[in-house]
Amino acid sequence: MSRDICIYLEFLEPHHKAMIDAAAAKTGFTPHYFTIEQREEAEKCLQHSEILYAHDVPMVRSAPETLKWYCCSYAGVDPYCKEDGIFRNPDCILTNSNVYGVTIAEHVVMVTLMLLRRMPEYEKIVADRGWSNQLPIRSIRDNEFTLLGTGNIGNRVAELLRGMGAAKIIGVSRSGKADAALYEEVYPISALDEVLKTTKNLIMSLPGTAETVGILSRERIALLPEGAYIVNVGRGTAIDQEALMEALNGGKLAGAALDVMDPEPLPAEHPLWETKNLILTPHVSGNMTLGYTRNENVRLFCADLENYAAGRPLAGYVDRKRGY
Amino acid sequence: MSRDICIYLEFLEPHHKAMIDAAAAKTGFTPHYFTIEQREEAEKCLQHSEILYAHDVPMVRSAPETLKWYCCSYAGVDPYCKEDGIFRNPDCILTNSNVYGVTIAEHVVMVTLMLLRRMPEYEKIVADRGWSNQLPIRSIRDNEFTLLGTGNIGNRVAELLRGMGAAKIIGVSRSGKADAALYEEVYPISALDEVLKTTKNLIMSLPGTAETVGILSRERIALLPEGAYIVNVGRGTAIDQEALMEALNGGKLAGAALDVMDPEPLPAEHPLWETKNLILTPHVSGNMTLGYTRNENVRLFCADLENYAAGRPLAGYVDRKRGY
Repeated sequence: MSRDICIYLEFLEPHHKAMIDAAAAKTGFTPHYFTIEQREEAEKCLQHSEILYAHDVPMVRSAPETLKWYCCSYAGVDPYCKEDGIFRNPDCILTNSNVYGVTIAEHVVMVTLMLLRRMPEYEKIVADRGWSNQLPIRSIRDNEFTLLGTGNIGNRVAELLRGMGAAKIIGVSRSGKADAALYEEVYPISALDEVLKTTKNLIMSLPGTAETVGILSRERIALLPEGAYIVNVGRGTAIDQEALMEALNGGKLAGAALDVMDPEPLPAEHPLWETKNLILTPHVSGNMTLGYTRNENVRLFCADLENYAAGRPLAGYVDRKRGY
Repeated sequence: MSRDICIYLEFLEPHHKAMIDAAAAKTGFTPHYFTIEQREEAEKCLQHSEILYAHDVPMVRSAPETLKWYCCSYAGVDPYCKEDGIFRNPDCILTNSNVYGVTIAEHVVMVTLMLLRRMPEYEKIVADRGWSNQLPIRSIRDNEFTLLGTGNIGNRVAELLRGMGAAKIIGVSRSGKADAALYEEVYPISALDEVLKTTKNLIMSLPGTAETVGILSRERIALLPEGAYIVNVGRGTAIDQEALMEALNGGKLAGAALDVMDPEPLPAEHPLWETKNLILTPHVSGNMTLGYTRNENVRLFCADLENYAAGRPLAGYVDRKRGY
């Protein structure tokens, strides 16, 4: 009997298919590739496939009981954990693709430099075709950063900042523990008030949980020194947006960059759009890149295909009851 | 007799003065500090000073024959080399402050990420309060870069790109030689045509000399692959701007970032202002930062003050006949 893999993805380039072909040949599988337009053909193929590599909730719902492994090309797999009976085969293995820290960290470095180098102000000068260029600027080199959230994203950010010569990187995490090689100091959330008092640059990458909603409250924003910067790539709900806007428009904070907001999409009439020294991006920090993220996504799938064929544990394994 | 240092600078913070005070005490000098507003007092002090630490052409012209060392806080010292008799003391030592590679390299990383991550397009979407976020983006990680110019700036850029996981960094220099630890391959200018044919990201940091004017000609822009990016932080004259604008507006190039243009300031009616996918900044890449650049500037002066007092060669020494 043929063992089939149904692959329904928008991002595969020829060299990715070559990687998958090689891993499949090695393990006795036959891969079938479908573009996003070929949905009907993909669903037909899924009926006799043992493995699905995609990111598509309805397709998972329509998979037969014979599906044994669903590799989701996204990191976030809550839809597949929350919905009872979404897998007709209750033992179907779920894996996710934890490859987005690198692209998010590049986004964080970009907006951090834009803030430190006063790009929101220079972009206004350039839009008016002006030539003023004497604004005092700051550097990452020799600067200090507080990373609120020390997971995959925080760790990749810490690596990049260290490589650029940051003088001190403080991690703040729920447990108060984090990779000691990446942070000079690590504190639990209970010490956050104290840490904020000397934080020049705050980088937030917290997940959206009951504990993180409103964590950067009005009171905590007030604790930050004059002229501090804030970057948020976690969840918009983590920040008291009203208080943030007041601190930016009033000049207490020197600038902020938000890739996440509450709500998303941000309504056209929302005052965040016009807040001073604020860089807004429409939730793009984790977007898959043409380079690293795609290659790594496929590499992880191929490695797990070999694990799967050999009966070994899968690197991307998700406990569907726990949700991660 | 008192040995005086006249210090006429706009950027000194209290901890910088403390550093200079300590080095002066150690070497038997008395520093005198003047703000930019205290020009008259500074010129008076200069009449009995052995050393001047500043960046001011008229002040050097007005210095007496007793001035023995002028430390220029800028890197560019051509005005002091080109003008005959600018130093009344023909043996006055000239030093410069080669500390700007770090800040320029941070600028290069910022604009490179802005290009790879499509920020010119996202900024338009955000300006219109839109929420589209599916533009294909690229990463520095695993990407390839050609650095045209492998001096202090190119080397610092190479260090940062390597730290961010670049797959390949090619250096192109006049001599065809460069620090082997920083570049996978190094070529002389004579090989530039061949190198450009496979260059995805071109970063230019050449000085303005007879050899570099027009070096990125129309013909060479045509050699670049479709979708390439260009960053220039050297001199505006190095690029055929007409050809660059055509390649950007026509979509052959994916984007460019110019911190230098020809002429500067760019006239209000110049078509560069409205060129597609072009990030313009008003010659800010080498601006002194509140962190690293200032500290390093003062550190180098203090180190050379100790060298000077001990009769050792000075680290920032400039051969005024050669010009660097």
